[in-house]
Amino acid sequence: MTLTDSPALMPVEQALDALLRQAESTAIKDVESVSIEDAVGRILAEPLVAQLDLPPWPNSAMDGYAIRESDLRGQPLRVSQKIFAGSQPEPLEAGSCARIFTGAPMPDGADSVEMQENVELLDDGRVRFLEPVRRGQHVRPQGGEARTGDEVLAAGARLGPIELGLAASLGVSRLSVSRKLKVALLSTGDELVEPGETLQPGQIYNSNRMLLRRWLQRLGCEVIDAGIVPDDLVRVRQCLADLHEVDLILSTGGVSVGEADFLGQVLREEGELSLWKLAIKPGKPLTCGSYQGVAVIGLPGNPASTLVTFGLLARPYLLRRMGVLQVEPLSFQVPANFDWPRPGKRREYLRARLESGKAVLYSNQSSSILRSAAWADGLVEVREHRQLKDGDLVPFISFAELLC
Amino acid sequence: MTLTDSPALMPVEQALDALLRQAESTAIKDVESVSIEDAVGRILAEPLVAQLDLPPWPNSAMDGYAIRESDLRGQPLRVSQKIFAGSQPEPLEAGSCARIFTGAPMPDGADSVEMQENVELLDDGRVRFLEPVRRGQHVRPQGGEARTGDEVLAAGARLGPIELGLAASLGVSRLSVSRKLKVALLSTGDELVEPGETLQPGQIYNSNRMLLRRWLQRLGCEVIDAGIVPDDLVRVRQCLADLHEVDLILSTGGVSVGEADFLGQVLREEGELSLWKLAIKPGKPLTCGSYQGVAVIGLPGNPASTLVTFGLLARPYLLRRMGVLQVEPLSFQVPANFDWPRPGKRREYLRARLESGKAVLYSNQSSSILRSAAWADGLVEVREHRQLKDGDLVPFISFAELLC
Repeated sequence: MTLTDSPALMPVEQALDALLRQAESTAIKDVESVSIEDAVGRILAEPLVAQLDLPPWPNSAMDGYAIRESDLRGQPLRVSQKIFAGSQPEPLEAGSCARIFTGAPMPDGADSVEMQENVELLDDGRVRFLEPVRRGQHVRPQGGEARTGDEVLAAGARLGPIELGLAASLGVSRLSVSRKLKVALLSTGDELVEPGETLQPGQIYNSNRMLLRRWLQRLGCEVIDAGIVPDDLVRVRQCLADLHEVDLILSTGGVSVGEADFLGQVLREEGELSLWKLAIKPGKPLTCGSYQGVAVIGLPGNPASTLVTFGLLARPYLLRRMGVLQVEPLSFQVPANFDWPRPGKRREYLRARLESGKAVLYSNQSSSILRSAAWADGLVEVREHRQLKDGDLVPFISFAELLC
Repeated sequence: MTLTDSPALMPVEQALDALLRQAESTAIKDVESVSIEDAVGRILAEPLVAQLDLPPWPNSAMDGYAIRESDLRGQPLRVSQKIFAGSQPEPLEAGSCARIFTGAPMPDGADSVEMQENVELLDDGRVRFLEPVRRGQHVRPQGGEARTGDEVLAAGARLGPIELGLAASLGVSRLSVSRKLKVALLSTGDELVEPGETLQPGQIYNSNRMLLRRWLQRLGCEVIDAGIVPDDLVRVRQCLADLHEVDLILSTGGVSVGEADFLGQVLREEGELSLWKLAIKPGKPLTCGSYQGVAVIGLPGNPASTLVTFGLLARPYLLRRMGVLQVEPLSFQVPANFDWPRPGKRREYLRARLESGKAVLYSNQSSSILRSAAWADGLVEVREHRQLKDGDLVPFISFAELLC
């Protein structure tokens, strides 16, 4: 990318497209084989293909009696065997039925199961079937969930509890996953100090480091915590020079300020720098560039701006670099519990809570305020040039979608 | 709870109410103090109260010029100081302005900021203000986000990236959290083997252990993995006897089967057992009870049943025991992309994906099939006795909501 500083605001879609294209061109290619025990949160590098039929054999969906449907001609049947889950049945004797439990393998020759509620046990031990039986009923066929050779998870799947459960059900004990993306996280700003330190006049505590480190880890990134970069050219240079082995340098705090912009200066000298002005609120300025070949993204430093730009732009970028296909959060239409009379030039992401199904805004939507996000359930999206009345439907992105 | 086995189906709300009441009566009271670095995923045991004003001093929301609004009478003002973020300003000299940057403290005497885009720099260094200035504009007041003594997070808050970022912004380096809930996880069923082992006839791989272990960890529980419990009375007894220090025994697989129900037998002898038949599909049977004073929940063993009953019943129970107030997942109304002509007696949770904003069902909704959940984005809820037509709105619970 080249240095551009256009006065027109860049639409969110255009910024996202550019970031995703860049992510695809620098996607992680290194593949690691990990134990299923260590695979949580990782991203599948190759499709997961079933190496067996699932279930491996036909089995009963009910506690009841396995029969050959054509044997049923109104007469009671004697019980020739009892089949528990985990056991291996004998072939079904002609003219008999088998007591069978849920999940137990069907005996050869049987084609149907009647549930125990629909039979009568006679004194002589035989079983009378009280209802008509449909051939094949309550039998789970072999391969009904997956057949050998089926792709059950695509490359790029994120391995959460469900995906790992599915892999386990196929007997898979090792998985091919993408190498973790190494992200160097740094905060700029001489006003920042870390929690636990004493606040001097003019200083504030750094919230972005904690926010982003935990968020990056949830996304499956390896975080190299570069801390707070001082406003000093020599030390900024040294800090960046130490980060040559990372995949991304993610900074927060204004690169665009100008008069104390040492990070921007180093990037201009030893890489590339482009300052985007996005049609997004909070969060207008975004820095994209590189340092000695390493990608750099600079987010605005106000906490709500950091949250919104990371969630909507950096998060999809990071996931796509790790090979994830579905990188955008689900959003849902909910009725607004507010009026929005004045259309804006930027797309607004408002911290909102759902109350009785309607989106209620936090009272103070300042970009500097993170408390709004802790109060909220997620973000309401109000598109540029849009007016809203109470009750109009607006897209809502839950933090649960965004933060994982 | 006492042994009940009523033929009427228990509504989901009733089961949830009973579980939450029980959770509240056995809520974890032990409090631990942890470093903010180790607090991710933990649950706040005491309210987080601001010990400082946030921001600690009034500061500029813009790059621009700090002024006393009453000094502005059309004349240009000289620049008497330059204030960077992190610095400590001198009081503003009367009749002058201060160059100021975003986040920098306002000098005493100044009450407003004009953004740099709205001024003209004169050759003599003075600044001409081109637009009317509203007193207080672009100033973030001291305490605008939080005042000393404000409760910024309630007890029971789950500490994710946002909450930890907020705590960091308040300078908090240690947090009081609830002790982790210790959950013993065990699977019953002689048919089960673990991934990596060789499948013998009649056996299947155990998916629930992987599903639930990862899920429990995401909820902030400590998992004691008790593995697969054999269908053998002596060994079941021994297994349970080893678990007396846990807060919950969570089992999967039918306790209700009867003929090989050793777990049920031990619970009846050394605790309490109640078998619920829930109006839920998948997932009808649920076991609640205790073993020597330790709570026991037994989920059905079919993977989709395990998923649904854990997500909708055990998850809120676990979170409430750890003190979480908001335990139910957000759900959203989405249009169905299917007809549902036959009303059911049980509430159905159908694995569905959102396509063009509509809920599309996985083709096979069998309780035995976990692949449906890996394909899906979440669960559509179809209430008992309900018919649906394509386009009707149905509640949708995203897996992102449920799995965290």
